Amino acid sequence: MSEIRRNVPVDEQIQILKRGVVDLVSEDDLRRKIARGQETGQPLRVKLGADPTRPDLHLGHAVILRKMRQFQDLGHKVIMLIGDFTATIGDPTGKSKTRPPLSLDEARANAESYLAQCRLILRQEPEVLEIRYNSEWLEQLGYKDIIGLAAKYTVARILERDDFSKRLSAGTPISMHELLYPLTQGYDSVALRADVELGGTDQLFNNLVGRALQRDYDQEAQVVMTLPLLVGLDGTEKMSKSLDNYIGLTDAPHAMFAGLMKVPDPLLENYFTLLTDLGAERIAELLAGHPVAAHRELAREVVRSFHPGADLDAAEERFRSVAKGGIPDNIPEVRVPVGELGEQGSVALAKLVVLAGLEPSNGAARKLMQNRGLKLNGEAFTDPQGQLTREQLAGGVVVQKGKDKFARLLLES
Amino acid sequence: MSEIRRNVPVDEQIQILKRGVVDLVSEDDLRRKIARGQETGQPLRVKLGADPTRPDLHLGHAVILRKMRQFQDLGHKVIMLIGDFTATIGDPTGKSKTRPPLSLDEARANAESYLAQCRLILRQEPEVLEIRYNSEWLEQLGYKDIIGLAAKYTVARILERDDFSKRLSAGTPISMHELLYPLTQGYDSVALRADVELGGTDQLFNNLVGRALQRDYDQEAQVVMTLPLLVGLDGTEKMSKSLDNYIGLTDAPHAMFAGLMKVPDPLLENYFTLLTDLGAERIAELLAGHPVAAHRELAREVVRSFHPGADLDAAEERFRSVAKGGIPDNIPEVRVPVGELGEQGSVALAKLVVLAGLEPSNGAARKLMQNRGLKLNGEAFTDPQGQLTREQLAGGVVVQKGKDKFARLLLES
Repeated sequence: MSEIRRNVPVDEQIQILKRGVVDLVSEDDLRRKIARGQETGQPLRVKLGADPTRPDLHLGHAVILRKMRQFQDLGHKVIMLIGDFTATIGDPTGKSKTRPPLSLDEARANAESYLAQCRLILRQEPEVLEIRYNSEWLEQLGYKDIIGLAAKYTVARILERDDFSKRLSAGTPISMHELLYPLTQGYDSVALRADVELGGTDQLFNNLVGRALQRDYDQEAQVVMTLPLLVGLDGTEKMSKSLDNYIGLTDAPHAMFAGLMKVPDPLLENYFTLLTDLGAERIAELLAGHPVAAHRELAREVVRSFHPGADLDAAEERFRSVAKGGIPDNIPEVRVPVGELGEQGSVALAKLVVLAGLEPSNGAARKLMQNRGLKLNGEAFTDPQGQLTREQLAGGVVVQKGKDKFARLLLES
Repeated sequence: MSEIRRNVPVDEQIQILKRGVVDLVSEDDLRRKIARGQETGQPLRVKLGADPTRPDLHLGHAVILRKMRQFQDLGHKVIMLIGDFTATIGDPTGKSKTRPPLSLDEARANAESYLAQCRLILRQEPEVLEIRYNSEWLEQLGYKDIIGLAAKYTVARILERDDFSKRLSAGTPISMHELLYPLTQGYDSVALRADVELGGTDQLFNNLVGRALQRDYDQEAQVVMTLPLLVGLDGTEKMSKSLDNYIGLTDAPHAMFAGLMKVPDPLLENYFTLLTDLGAERIAELLAGHPVAAHRELAREVVRSFHPGADLDAAEERFRSVAKGGIPDNIPEVRVPVGELGEQGSVALAKLVVLAGLEPSNGAARKLMQNRGLKLNGEAFTDPQGQLTREQLAGGVVVQKGKDKFARLLLES
């Protein structure tokens, strides 16, 4: 790991930190805060809010975490703020399925998983990493505090938020508590005395509330910095697990490599800028060249940063072999218990597909076969009622879903 | 004091309770609740919220308190809910001068004064009177409870409140905490399990929020009953102390009598309906007769209800004498300290007017004289620089502001 570079000249810091940024409110404030910090020896306090209801991170999250890492590399302290208390509330109306209320224990467990993934990107030295939980101050707030907090903001300003104004004019219900969440999030910045808050572009409004509230609490206003929402592998929607257009932060080198080779060409520049440290000149050079070469460079750069010791040549080799329709060497092995064989001494292939983790149910497995999405030992297998015998299984078979998902099935001895 | 009448037939109760009412949501609910109460022996729980930041009551408050008393007379339990906790918050933006934050002690002291005045109207038997303070439950509420409460109501419904929608469209700021107050007030109804909530017509929306919230908390919805805001002696604005168009609940019999004789003719029917128990027929008869006779009856009825033992003839006699320009017998005496006499052995009349409590400052007293508003011993006194000598004061002088405010000044012996 590189050394922390302290006392980098202000202009150079601004250049590094501005890369890929969408909103910066304001550059002057950031410059002033960095310059003053150099005089006083106080690094900036850089906040990122983390929602422990969704603990699976992907490259979309990496965009912001990499920016946090740049702050760390310049000696600033990043604060991972875990919204554990907020997670225990969930959506009190029960309408949102994506925000089930969690117990504090569940929230903490999710947070552990979240933080473990962040470690792939963030530095761990305590001088540049602080982990906080908002239960620390939100649990203390009483009715009077909340009225006092709410009094500092007007309804009109909250309703300016784009989605609120749209929903209100469309007649879509907004629950009163939703108006309180931006205030709470802002209050977190007050409690933390944040100098900078990072977020996706969808967080611009909420983070500006924090900036305004800090002034109301007689603090210096935080700098608000937003980063683009990374578009996923489908080329249109933002990367998300539920849309299955993502590359997971903890994906194995070969899977990450394969995923990056699939990035649509128009997104290449974006991925280079947001996910690698390559300079602007090198990026321009790559974009001017052959797209496959550019993809290869992107994949190698990104995989190297998440898996510093990984064998990049092996990951690439596997990708090529699969692309040509081959079966890679290093695939998961699944043992089939002898008990699975029926009286006839055979077992439905659909059942084996589920056992191999390629589909969640027998029905889905049969559908996959009907749609010609399954291969057995490299050949399409399209009979949904098909069976494998003990003899076929004894020597091992390879099942393959689509281009890139494999498992080797072996009868348990 | 009359007996409590229990088990009055439902129809008769409804007739009594509907008198003078503006909104009743809904009559069916009220009827059903009363009928069931008769079966189970459970009287209704009738809530009135009291704001201890303004402890001076006038006849405008009497309108609602008299309705509460009618519930008591029918055996129902009224609950005076003192907003002591809310009073300690005041207006956190500091913009409203009418809502300074109070200490809990101040709020409680104001509440004592408020309740003492209520005793002029309400029955005191504990079976029909409960006094509660909202600190009891609001002090317990944490962030999570408030989010849960807020989640039960939509922004659109809160913004339907007339003054909110007008202010929002006019661009006049509404502070976020103002949206929370109706929810809190509604939560009070949940905490009290109120069957009925009374209020002025300006409270209709807030009390309907309580009705809705009770349902959300799996309670039966309260009946909401509103009464008119009494128009003051100026004939246009609602009665209020700050507009000086009021008759205080604790005014002396003669002052109350004189005030009621000044009620503008178009308001007579209203005053009769809302402040006396006279039947509709008798009221019609009085309104058809001479206005002075109607005023006299109104004054005697109302004064008797607040001062059961008072000498109504004496109060009337005094009113008549003052009306003819006479000086009544029973007026406040103010002692003038000898030290007030200057070297010349005299004192400015303006100073004495202030001493007598007729004006707040020498300047105001001089203005009163210039405007020919002051009499000395029954004669207009218009010289703002005028002095009285020791000899003039020795025998006592009567100063009079307007038609009805007197003081007798005597040199301290």
